[in-house]
Amino acid sequence: MSGKHVLRMAELEVDPAQLDAYCALLAEEIEASISLEAGVLSLNAVAFKDSPHRIRILEVYESREAYEAHLQTPHFLKYKDGTMNMVTSLTLVDVEPVMMRSKP
Amino acid sequence: MSGKHVLRMAELEVDPAQLDAYCALLAEEIEASISLEAGVLSLNAVAFKDSPHRIRILEVYESREAYEAHLQTPHFLKYKDGTMNMVTSLTLVDVEPVMMRSKP
Repeated sequence: MSGKHVLRMAELEVDPAQLDAYCALLAEEIEASISLEAGVLSLNAVAFKDSPHRIRILEVYESREAYEAHLQTPHFLKYKDGTMNMVTSLTLVDVEPVMMRSKP
Repeated sequence: MSGKHVLRMAELEVDPAQLDAYCALLAEEIEASISLEAGVLSLNAVAFKDSPHRIRILEVYESREAYEAHLQTPHFLKYKDGTMNMVTSLTLVDVEPVMMRSKP
């Protein structure tokens, strides 16, 4: 993992009544970002099993520039506008890799 | 992501005075788990940039059996015993995928 990569952990809570709609918009946004943006390396979104309105997203971008560009894409803006009234709490944490490994 | 996969988010705090030693043991454990265990699919450990003693680990196992086997491996037991007195807080959360995508 290069030192110039940008990593973020998003910690969200979503209105339970709108959770299905939120997850659909998030899934669409992640699919588009990975498919269309060379600088978006991974987006892993999970929900707490016992309280599925609590979401964590581990985000990895190639660079600061890639991250800034991502924020201006139509698919991200659609997600952001579409979910604005579904998200009841949002904490964005800048993180750094300790060790990140996946099966090839 | 198959429904039978087991996913977990570990949220830890580590004694800041022992952080380097903790990260070395964690990195060694992750490297060994991915290299040696077919059922350990990914282990992504990150630290908060502004408070690096706060650690998050997103763990993905092939199955419940793979997860249980992992807990008995020499490298996991070495990590667990070696870090027992370094970890000041540990929360293990069962999570489910919402959408997980990485560049090929």
